[in-house]
Amino acid sequence: MSDIAPTGAAGEVERLVQWNEQGLVTAIAQDKGTGEVLMVAWADRTALAQTLATGTATYFSRSRQRLWVKGEESGYIQRVLEVRTDCDGDALLYLVDAPGPACHQLRRSCFSHRIDRDGSVHTDRPRIA
Amino acid sequence: MSDIAPTGAAGEVERLVQWNEQGLVTAIAQDKGTGEVLMVAWADRTALAQTLATGTATYFSRSRQRLWVKGEESGYIQRVLEVRTDCDGDALLYLVDAPGPACHQLRRSCFSHRIDRDGSVHTDRPRIA
Repeated sequence: MSDIAPTGAAGEVERLVQWNEQGLVTAIAQDKGTGEVLMVAWADRTALAQTLATGTATYFSRSRQRLWVKGEESGYIQRVLEVRTDCDGDALLYLVDAPGPACHQLRRSCFSHRIDRDGSVHTDRPRIA
Repeated sequence: MSDIAPTGAAGEVERLVQWNEQGLVTAIAQDKGTGEVLMVAWADRTALAQTLATGTATYFSRSRQRLWVKGEESGYIQRVLEVRTDCDGDALLYLVDAPGPACHQLRRSCFSHRIDRDGSVHTDRPRIA
């Protein structure tokens, strides 16, 4: 991957982002206040455009093959305070304000499993919103 | 994707992680102290095993098609304090202690580009380690 070279022109993000062969890019949601990494999902061009336009975190659901406004069912929407991309443009970082659980398991973060040195996996308890 | 169900058995992480068709999974490095998301890369089974065994962040470089110990050239290695995975096991989170820049552009984080509402992209200045 090579580094992106932004010029500050409106709309340039669409060509700067390195969409994969499915037209998707990794999208990470991080709580802007606490710094907690909440979840990792995917975004397509429409999801990113809608996120920027509405300020509500929008992803592309690969399992449902459609646009997915996080919280559209649970009500736990993520308000996007800032969107960033990395040096080679192959990932997005949504910095969000997310009062409720980000995970469908009703945990604050999806990263609820700790991997120990022996390769065993241990899940945080209890579930906390 | 369905939720993983850890049992705490040694070595189970290898089957719990949802490796993609290339045998890779997204790996995010986050500074454990500051919470800053530093970079996003990929890990294969060997990279994860080596990370767990050595405590040094190891990835799989797609461009070079080989194992990649972060900092092997720059000297800016990442000491891994904790490894986590998410609810459906398709991403890893390396919580690291990383004194130097994580980005080859000599920035602290690779996420140096802010995307504004009009789709323009703006790069942080100056470069800071």
